[in-house]
Amino acid sequence: MNFASDNVTGIAPEILAAIEAANDGAVASYGDDPITQRFQARLAEIFEHEVAVFPVATGTAANALGLAALTPPWGAVFCHEQSHIAIDEANAPEFYTGGAKLVPLGGADGKLSAETIQRLLPGGLGVVHHAQPAAVSLTQASECGTVYRPAEIAAIAAIAHRHGLAMHMDGARFANALAFLGCSPAEATWRAGIDALSFGATKNGALAAEAIVLFDPARAQTLALRRKRGGHLFSKMRFLSAQLDAYVADGLWLRQAGHANEMARRLARGLTQLPASRLRHPVEANELFVELPEPTIAGLLAAGFNFYRWDGPDSGCIRLVTAWNTAPESVDALVAAARELART
Amino acid sequence: MNFASDNVTGIAPEILAAIEAANDGAVASYGDDPITQRFQARLAEIFEHEVAVFPVATGTAANALGLAALTPPWGAVFCHEQSHIAIDEANAPEFYTGGAKLVPLGGADGKLSAETIQRLLPGGLGVVHHAQPAAVSLTQASECGTVYRPAEIAAIAAIAHRHGLAMHMDGARFANALAFLGCSPAEATWRAGIDALSFGATKNGALAAEAIVLFDPARAQTLALRRKRGGHLFSKMRFLSAQLDAYVADGLWLRQAGHANEMARRLARGLTQLPASRLRHPVEANELFVELPEPTIAGLLAAGFNFYRWDGPDSGCIRLVTAWNTAPESVDALVAAARELART
Amino acid sequence: MNFASDNVTGIAPEILAAIEAANDGAVASYGDDPITQRFQARLAEIFEHEVAVFPVATGTAANALGLAALTPPWGAVFCHEQSHIAIDEANAPEFYTGGAKLVPLGGADGKLSAETIQRLLPGGLGVVHHAQPAAVSLTQASECGTVYRPAEIAAIAAIAHRHGLAMHMDGARFANALAFLGCSPAEATWRAGIDALSFGATKNGALAAEAIVLFDPARAQTLALRRKRGGHLFSKMRFLSAQLDAYVADGLWLRQAGHANEMARRLARGLTQLPASRLRHPVEANELFVELPEPTIAGLLAAGFNFYRWDGPDSGCIRLVTAWNTAPESVDALVAAARELART
Amino acid sequence: MNFASDNVTGIAPEILAAIEAANDGAVASYGDDPITQRFQARLAEIFEHEVAVFPVATGTAANALGLAALTPPWGAVFCHEQSHIAIDEANAPEFYTGGAKLVPLGGADGKLSAETIQRLLPGGLGVVHHAQPAAVSLTQASECGTVYRPAEIAAIAAIAHRHGLAMHMDGARFANALAFLGCSPAEATWRAGIDALSFGATKNGALAAEAIVLFDPARAQTLALRRKRGGHLFSKMRFLSAQLDAYVADGLWLRQAGHANEMARRLARGLTQLPASRLRHPVEANELFVELPEPTIAGLLAAGFNFYRWDGPDSGCIRLVTAWNTAPESVDALVAAARELART
Repeated sequence: MNFASDNVTGIAPEILAAIEAANDGAVASYGDDPITQRFQARLAEIFEHEVAVFPVATGTAANALGLAALTPPWGAVFCHEQSHIAIDEANAPEFYTGGAKLVPLGGADGKLSAETIQRLLPGGLGVVHHAQPAAVSLTQASECGTVYRPAEIAAIAAIAHRHGLAMHMDGARFANALAFLGCSPAEATWRAGIDALSFGATKNGALAAEAIVLFDPARAQTLALRRKRGGHLFSKMRFLSAQLDAYVADGLWLRQAGHANEMARRLARGLTQLPASRLRHPVEANELFVELPEPTIAGLLAAGFNFYRWDGPDSGCIRLVTAWNTAPESVDALVAAARELART
Repeated sequence: MNFASDNVTGIAPEILAAIEAANDGAVASYGDDPITQRFQARLAEIFEHEVAVFPVATGTAANALGLAALTPPWGAVFCHEQSHIAIDEANAPEFYTGGAKLVPLGGADGKLSAETIQRLLPGGLGVVHHAQPAAVSLTQASECGTVYRPAEIAAIAAIAHRHGLAMHMDGARFANALAFLGCSPAEATWRAGIDALSFGATKNGALAAEAIVLFDPARAQTLALRRKRGGHLFSKMRFLSAQLDAYVADGLWLRQAGHANEMARRLARGLTQLPASRLRHPVEANELFVELPEPTIAGLLAAGFNFYRWDGPDSGCIRLVTAWNTAPESVDALVAAARELART
Repeated sequence: MNFASDNVTGIAPEILAAIEAANDGAVASYGDDPITQRFQARLAEIFEHEVAVFPVATGTAANALGLAALTPPWGAVFCHEQSHIAIDEANAPEFYTGGAKLVPLGGADGKLSAETIQRLLPGGLGVVHHAQPAAVSLTQASECGTVYRPAEIAAIAAIAHRHGLAMHMDGARFANALAFLGCSPAEATWRAGIDALSFGATKNGALAAEAIVLFDPARAQTLALRRKRGGHLFSKMRFLSAQLDAYVADGLWLRQAGHANEMARRLARGLTQLPASRLRHPVEANELFVELPEPTIAGLLAAGFNFYRWDGPDSGCIRLVTAWNTAPESVDALVAAARELART
Repeated sequence: MNFASDNVTGIAPEILAAIEAANDGAVASYGDDPITQRFQARLAEIFEHEVAVFPVATGTAANALGLAALTPPWGAVFCHEQSHIAIDEANAPEFYTGGAKLVPLGGADGKLSAETIQRLLPGGLGVVHHAQPAAVSLTQASECGTVYRPAEIAAIAAIAHRHGLAMHMDGARFANALAFLGCSPAEATWRAGIDALSFGATKNGALAAEAIVLFDPARAQTLALRRKRGGHLFSKMRFLSAQLDAYVADGLWLRQAGHANEMARRLARGLTQLPASRLRHPVEANELFVELPEPTIAGLLAAGFNFYRWDGPDSGCIRLVTAWNTAPESVDALVAAARELART
């Protein structure tokens, strides 16, 4: 039973069916097709706002291209020190922005605070020797499985916008965040001040599909060229769009994310009843970070449960990720095994 | 009936079935999966050579990353002036190489000649003021639908290698070229001196899948990092690899390319019987460039046939592209319509 | 006697004196000093136009930074195939623009024609697959020692501007061109449509000093950051500015360029009287390209005259460059030697 | 009296004289001249080691080019969070490296510790998702005016080299550090494990001259091309080399740095006798950071002393920088004024 990541999962049946349905006849390439248009219209409706939408196949591409639309090469992007863009993308943001600087910042539970951003601005703005503060990037849900509340986002965005910085959101797990918040997509994004969103689908049931969503069409002007130049413009775009369209149609994205979140909570409920366990962060989305006695961890791994130790090989903390297709039985099996191991 | 491009087609049934079959259970991400390993092994067998294989989703990514493995930022890449890398990739090769220079060169029927390359070398090699000649890129089949013979490749490669340049092949239509040549994949590539190949599948029946193939593993050392940094490393890699694996299994790739080529020849046979028609280039792969009287062109467009005029809006030349799924009936219908139009 | 290049010369006495004069006391760094301000004011007066001025130390830096202010990374820059930016800057323009494409074009006597530019536009403008035409770069005086007339520049600029392209001028030998034209600096630049100028001084008597001159202050907004990021912002800026200020004060630049041009004409007059000599291009600035019998060339080299063969080691063409300090006696000595060699 | 920076100073008489002496006759350009060769030979002798030397005009160019020789675009460079490369170069290192990541680290008195580096390695080495640790950069003397002892450097280098990282030293004030240490240039660099050094001269009396010094010639292979591509190859190289040659001839560099250091100590001695003063860091080179009562600071500024407040406009800390030409009388005047102000 695999709790290593939500990217070990396959394709949700509805999304696979949509790919199959799109495989009919000759269709204009590079996005000039009805499925792409339908998805764009649907996303505008869902976000209650004009949007420029750019489907791509990976989260790294979505983040790096989105950031490149927000910052010049001499810019600085403020982000959490644990964020995917800072740690897990092999300098892709630096590559796509032409050499902008990511400024890694601390913050409890994987989240930046308005105070932190406030303290750093205006920074070197307007001084030719310094990187020019250009954007703030938030990860929603965060790498710690926590979720920014709209008011938290708005507080950061207010400061950022006051100084001319743009707001970026890495939403590889945006659906999980939204399912937790229960608010509208608009409230969690542009109404709180987000300018560009990586709208993730891959981890939540797509084959490989994310959408860069720009709420300001003026910023979109050159993103089409950036996407092509990065090799991320699909000729058979209909198959990217079909995934995304099925993902958002009929609320599939939120149903699946809600299920993943529920499985995470179920895990948390079970594991926190063990005597020596401790949650590192609140469990709000589909990841939990839990400290367990070493024999319990070793025993779970030996029993074939699949997950990562989080602080290195001798750590007492593990990360468990649930997904759109995690079975309650798998959760219960892990909890039962851990309980058994704790007892001995 | 659509002869605009081979990228207006959908997914071949065998490849779609492979995607469905791969959608089973939790699988390690980022390429550490059995399907990816199986495809790599199969490709080594097909090419009769150790290969480093990097699946990506677009031809532009395959070309730009492959070139970046062959040239430094201060390098020069010799290519045909009509090549896709020079004309149709929005500076992606410049982006991925960090600013290398593509040197556009003439050549009959879309092909470079050994004489042209000979004349340009050593060029600025070793002189600090000049771009350093680093690679030659051939397009196989070429943008004119013609095919390099292995001896032609070998003649160019001999000169290039003598001066320390690497040989790149844009094989977006490699299968079509090989189906025409009838030789082995090895003879058409590394035995003739090719160092890196963009092995295309998308145009020939995949959803979106190409493989960068390096015949020298030493050059592969950093390509994995380049691919990740470019946002082209798929988390659910199995679905890229499944497409490619089905593509090469049982000779599907060559069967499909052979069919496309046969349809192109069928078109050529039919159209060259018209009084005022003329082929611009030999028809060797799945594209033909044919000059027709303007009323014939206009009539075909009016009748709903889909294709591009090649020299601008008032040109007498059109491009027709056939594909893995072009029906003989479609070909015959176009020829019949043209014959009818020519008569009036 | 050295006719190899105008960059083998040293510093003009007036310019060296200005450096010495600037070496007095503590002065604010990075350009916030009175000499820099004085030079900027003087240049605005000379060009009869508001200008944004950025002193740098090399011609390559001036060109590459200037072009970067005019073109995005996905842009195309039209230039002559013999231009310094295309041939002699080791991909610096590609580096500074973030990967823009230089499009090398033919043209008699080292000059582009309006017809050539007309034929290429709009090109791929607005089509995502193609490099976006962004700028035209003219070399004034050209690499063939010829000079664009203001009307020639204006004809090209009219076409370029109509399609939204910017006009760049590599003026490493701008003074020589202007001395030939006899018109005002304004007529040769912004009145004819030039948007950015590399205003060269090094070849014409400075230690190492060029100025990027932008006629549209809006384009200057980010150039200060680009210059710093390129490592081209001098801390002791006063010494760059002092060179440039002395260069333009009292017409030194035009006097020196006029002298160099006169020496080139004197060489041309002498050499064209030889029976088997032929000028390749009109002699308008301070370079001449002259075909001579091989024994004459070999004899001149043996006699210690310093110059480059232009078409390779066995060519019958040589390039002779005169400079601000070329002595008439040196010119006469070369002509006399050639006459003597031609006689034998 | 100006204590704002050592870059507000002019040119030392010996260096200006060397420029004048170099201004004699026609000389081969781009470094193929006897002065450049002499300087290179002299530097090899001074460092007791084969060196590849690349004169450039700014410290930012020296650092960014030197780092680019040590790290790939997907690399990470560990540096102090206050270092010039991290803070004061407008993303030049990111630009020249093609997008490498600077990792800002803490450390007392502006210095990194071996423990800090130890803790971070191997980091993401070999894992495709992470920036690849590639180099450690030390600033000598540091931005806090402190100096690494050879043993401190060696301890860091041992860890770095064990993991394949290269060692970079920003020696914009290397002479000041060496004058403090009293050891040989070799002991402070390659014997302690340094691979590449920015050898600064501008702040210590040059017009504008620094040298990138590589102790491993293999790393030099492509730096010549990088320098040209960056626009940092001077045509009249003799004038860069003449500055540097005069700088190191007869020990001028160490004499001047020693004087600057002595002036800093004199300042420190004087100011620390004031009742409410406190040094932030040990005074080892030519900078001091001293906390003073606000009325004292305001009074000194009002009296025309020139320096920077270090923590913002209301800070109680100021930075005072001495230089090769700081007069003891200026130091005494500042101390006397501060004493007078403290008394009132």
